[in-house]
Amino acid sequence: MGSSVKKLAILGSTGSIGQQTLDVIRTFPHRFQIVGLAAGRNTDLLARQINEFKPKFIYSAHKESRSPGSGCEWLSLEDMACHPEVDICVIATSGKAGLSPTLAAVRAGKTIALANKESLVTAGEIITTEAERHGAKILPVDSEHSAIWQCLRGEPQPPAQIILTASGGPFRRYSPAELARVTPQQALKHPSWQMGKKVTIDSATLMNKGLEVIEAHWLFHQPFDGIRVIIHPQSIIHSMVEFADGSIKAQLSHPDMRFPIQYALSYPERLPNQKLPKLDWDRIKELTFEAPDLSTFPCLKLAIEAGKKGGTYPAVLCAADEVAIELFLAQRIGFSDIPRLVERSLAEHRAIAHPTIEDIIAADDWAREKALEFAAGVSRC
Amino acid sequence: MGSSVKKLAILGSTGSIGQQTLDVIRTFPHRFQIVGLAAGRNTDLLARQINEFKPKFIYSAHKESRSPGSGCEWLSLEDMACHPEVDICVIATSGKAGLSPTLAAVRAGKTIALANKESLVTAGEIITTEAERHGAKILPVDSEHSAIWQCLRGEPQPPAQIILTASGGPFRRYSPAELARVTPQQALKHPSWQMGKKVTIDSATLMNKGLEVIEAHWLFHQPFDGIRVIIHPQSIIHSMVEFADGSIKAQLSHPDMRFPIQYALSYPERLPNQKLPKLDWDRIKELTFEAPDLSTFPCLKLAIEAGKKGGTYPAVLCAADEVAIELFLAQRIGFSDIPRLVERSLAEHRAIAHPTIEDIIAADDWAREKALEFAAGVSRC
Repeated sequence: MGSSVKKLAILGSTGSIGQQTLDVIRTFPHRFQIVGLAAGRNTDLLARQINEFKPKFIYSAHKESRSPGSGCEWLSLEDMACHPEVDICVIATSGKAGLSPTLAAVRAGKTIALANKESLVTAGEIITTEAERHGAKILPVDSEHSAIWQCLRGEPQPPAQIILTASGGPFRRYSPAELARVTPQQALKHPSWQMGKKVTIDSATLMNKGLEVIEAHWLFHQPFDGIRVIIHPQSIIHSMVEFADGSIKAQLSHPDMRFPIQYALSYPERLPNQKLPKLDWDRIKELTFEAPDLSTFPCLKLAIEAGKKGGTYPAVLCAADEVAIELFLAQRIGFSDIPRLVERSLAEHRAIAHPTIEDIIAADDWAREKALEFAAGVSRC
Repeated sequence: MGSSVKKLAILGSTGSIGQQTLDVIRTFPHRFQIVGLAAGRNTDLLARQINEFKPKFIYSAHKESRSPGSGCEWLSLEDMACHPEVDICVIATSGKAGLSPTLAAVRAGKTIALANKESLVTAGEIITTEAERHGAKILPVDSEHSAIWQCLRGEPQPPAQIILTASGGPFRRYSPAELARVTPQQALKHPSWQMGKKVTIDSATLMNKGLEVIEAHWLFHQPFDGIRVIIHPQSIIHSMVEFADGSIKAQLSHPDMRFPIQYALSYPERLPNQKLPKLDWDRIKELTFEAPDLSTFPCLKLAIEAGKKGGTYPAVLCAADEVAIELFLAQRIGFSDIPRLVERSLAEHRAIAHPTIEDIIAADDWAREKALEFAAGVSRC
């Protein structure tokens, strides 16, 4: 087995995925080396990470923190993403901040471990086209897409169907009336996964699964009609692929993001990691499945529809959703207002069919304003 | 995709696997051609199969049926298995009748779709060594081994653990007292699979799963300590593989032997087959798992122990089991006497560590006599 050291840059190193990526790297100091770390506003944690991993390149969104001379070179997110010394660029920033560095890495023909959902959801056509043109490799870090990627390994034919599993979130089987009364505190408690706030709320509304459907469409060139979502509350099966002959492969593990992170970093090799909890078949009694309730959780349907329509619709979906979640966490709107704001934004949007990056950013800006406008109406009620 | 016609010989064409193999071939007349059919004593069905598939070569264990001049050439099982015109030899005979033609095919460097359990169980060391020497390919037809093979596809590293699933048979959760009263009629009703009589009884005693552990050991070069058995009554997950990183892949399908048969025949391609029932996720509510009850179903333990000891022990295991099942079906011994006969035969056996084929046949003969001897004692009680 090759033992060459892979050089990594992590964009979003202080977030949930960033921290778990560093935990994997800590386990394999002879396999991975951190050459770049980029973070948002958590400057304390970034300082500790810099001290531990001694990167060459750093970035912080918090300008004041840039003064201490740490012997590192300051780079923009884009310059770090496509720097020649970087073998794998881990893009773990959340929201639209991931789009521009993803595009820079793609155009530099990099290997990208992609945890940021928004870049593929809003600009899937541009990113996949550019990746093909520049020979860039996009390796999924999401547990679902990693599962699909693992199931497709060694299979030369395209999938007949991709089956994305969803935990169903903390409010599975809630009635619409119960859902309307849900608090941010309740919504932030996910039954099986440890994740960032935005993703946790998106899991509770099932928007997250809708975004993953769009991502799967772009990552695996799979038509939307060949992707289905199944609720699987135990989060043990991370997704499945049905092949042409009707045979299905599934990937399973304890729900821990370090599995898909490590797989993307070590690919094509698999590394034994004693820190990762193994599935205990003496304790797994059952794996259950049910259909998603699209009328109580309309975000899933809204996302799939936006994905099918394409153009700038997914950008509007993401932006309106991001605003709605911020407003919900600030207790300015209710949980059930999240899909309402998204739906109204989509309904009023005049889409562009094959947008440029500028069109996508403009649609995002427009949707944020619109969502705030609608929200003002909601809060007035 | 390649559209060359694969030429097949089916040894055991009138048995359960043989008939289902012909059903697959019927679906893809432009992909497969029958050049040889060999059967036991079901001469009527063989005649109909000859009429439909028009093979060049035939064999029947029933000598009288050899007279009608059907324009076919009569061959021995061994000559058919290694005939130059045969691309894939499907070995679907049951019991020890499969050993000699399997060896002939292996020594001719053939591609073998192997449904016969006994050849690998009793002579795994010889067969795998000879297969490597002569470049023969052994493709598993059992649903469990096909599942493992599918999960390993594209994975360059050996499995950390093979997880064989077992339906648990019709008597799962029976007490030893209930088990002692079981009739052949009850034992022949398998809850999820349509199979031949011998395999169905072996499924009810869990002997079948023990034989599969030994097969998995030889097919995938997996140490016995890296193979475990889990009861999964729905028979939807056909087996799983855990990899070095703790990630697990599973293969799923409706329980229908035509899936693994077709996979072996069409490999590396997967062919769409509308006749095969797809898994219906609107109806699958749960997949359950439990540990096998080794004290109530001792055959599983006996088989794994015989496999670990190796030498001529597995031959004794198979032969004693075959005799015991015949006696049980003839209502001469009880269901719980099956493991007793096998255990006594193994206990009294003086094994040879690295047997030749002749040693294996001699151990088989010895065990049959011994089992009959013990059975006479049992029936006298």
